[in-house]
Amino acid sequence: MSLLVTGSIGIDSVQTPYGQASDVLGGSAVYFSFAATYYTPVRLVGAVGGDFPEEFRKVLGEREIDLAGLETRAASKSFRWSGSYAGDMNEAETLETKLNVLAEEAPKLPEAFRDSAFVFLANTHPALQRDLVSQLTSPKLIVCDTMNLWIETTREELLRTLRVIDGLVLNYGEARMLTGEQNLLTAGRGILKLGPRVVVIKKGEHGAMMVTPKGVLVLPAFPSEKVRDPTGAGDSFAGGMMGYLAHADRTDEAAWREALVRGTITASINIEDFSLNALRRTKRADAEKRVEQYLAMMPGG
Amino acid sequence: MSLLVTGSIGIDSVQTPYGQASDVLGGSAVYFSFAATYYTPVRLVGAVGGDFPEEFRKVLGEREIDLAGLETRAASKSFRWSGSYAGDMNEAETLETKLNVLAEEAPKLPEAFRDSAFVFLANTHPALQRDLVSQLTSPKLIVCDTMNLWIETTREELLRTLRVIDGLVLNYGEARMLTGEQNLLTAGRGILKLGPRVVVIKKGEHGAMMVTPKGVLVLPAFPSEKVRDPTGAGDSFAGGMMGYLAHADRTDEAAWREALVRGTITASINIEDFSLNALRRTKRADAEKRVEQYLAMMPGG
Repeated sequence: MSLLVTGSIGIDSVQTPYGQASDVLGGSAVYFSFAATYYTPVRLVGAVGGDFPEEFRKVLGEREIDLAGLETRAASKSFRWSGSYAGDMNEAETLETKLNVLAEEAPKLPEAFRDSAFVFLANTHPALQRDLVSQLTSPKLIVCDTMNLWIETTREELLRTLRVIDGLVLNYGEARMLTGEQNLLTAGRGILKLGPRVVVIKKGEHGAMMVTPKGVLVLPAFPSEKVRDPTGAGDSFAGGMMGYLAHADRTDEAAWREALVRGTITASINIEDFSLNALRRTKRADAEKRVEQYLAMMPGG
Repeated sequence: MSLLVTGSIGIDSVQTPYGQASDVLGGSAVYFSFAATYYTPVRLVGAVGGDFPEEFRKVLGEREIDLAGLETRAASKSFRWSGSYAGDMNEAETLETKLNVLAEEAPKLPEAFRDSAFVFLANTHPALQRDLVSQLTSPKLIVCDTMNLWIETTREELLRTLRVIDGLVLNYGEARMLTGEQNLLTAGRGILKLGPRVVVIKKGEHGAMMVTPKGVLVLPAFPSEKVRDPTGAGDSFAGGMMGYLAHADRTDEAAWREALVRGTITASINIEDFSLNALRRTKRADAEKRVEQYLAMMPGG
């Protein structure tokens, strides 16, 4: 089934203990799309400025990504982010964020995308997320991401958004902030009461947890010795997850469990190199092979 | 098969966001023994002072713990520890440690315990650990714990100990400190080169990882909403793990995997209440029921 993503398309500069990359392709919707297209084509909605390199457009063209919703605003500048990671690389230190085109009007949802069945709203202002939801004609599954900024500054807007979506993906610090609960399972169950029927809490190198009214899924991260750049880990996690669900055209509990395994694996591939490099060179067959390796590393495997 | 543990037997005072307990039974060998006796009897070696309450001795008598190696030194005082936990409770803040009897001569290994097959050396000076190893007549599996203090101050002694044991259990901060590697898998593999053929890295609320020459096992923690006091989590983890191995009388990879699941579960029970309270009231059948619940919470389950 069709999968829509809307989020940032950016130009990143990143430094980690393993190297650095300057002015490389990044952004939540981009990481999401590269991970999701292991499983299904993606419709991308986002905006870039006149400075967006032709070369990056070619990279986006490598995958089955429908760019009809990619707006280029010649007079604007693209979103830029620079950050660095140290130590266990669990958290980025943001050095600079230039919202640029992201601070302007939201990109339009093309008429042809309104019938999208599976929808992922990457982290942005919750009112904009709700605005996009209102334009959908026949959604089967709407999942969104959020961040500490919106939890702190636009809490009421966020709570309204949580009432119109199906799933929320957020990291553990955000889950604690949103609910005021230290215990992650209590936090997850608290979020279920706010509207979503699926809550996915990301824990970086420690894996993820899914909480639904039916139960709990706990997933360790795929242990890798080749972690070079965690940028986009959460977005590539969401991409693998949503790509699998859209491909399977299912939203039941069992499908979600399979989907979270895929998200874990696409994230693990992504962080092995800077920018989109690892996702670009890794084939779906290799990702599925890693799924098998991963399952074998767990007690039931 | 016989299971021997040597470690501390203490009197603890603990404060957490969920309450507090003063002058309660604690110590690494005690938590270990209560968890291990879900699966097999335990031989305990340790020393206490004349101040050790008769009531605590009765508690130890509730389980199949052979106390022939429990030395009571009337003129000495028992080991005391007090600490507090805040926030996510992943780390204790030690308020006071009184080594007392632990700073004296090591307790003697009774002649009848020398033939122990499965042996766990809880955290203590690595030279004392080695001394105990040298007294064993027919060990099948020797596993030890350690801590940052020995890694920093007696590194050479610790490295010598690592060459005469089979397995090392340590937390992730210690694994990083011992190897200088941030990546946990790299750290685990680095420790294998130092002697042990099994390395178990504990990650608190994030679970555990086992690294052997054959492969890797990753385990999330059992998600619980009832975490009240994490004291003894690592020791009850080791107890469930070693208790299962001794009970099965196996040291192969498959048995270790099963054993780590048991360790995860006994630790999850322990942290649901202060001191030994939760382990004391929970039956083996309930622990095994929780094993099933846990496996069902993972992708293969």
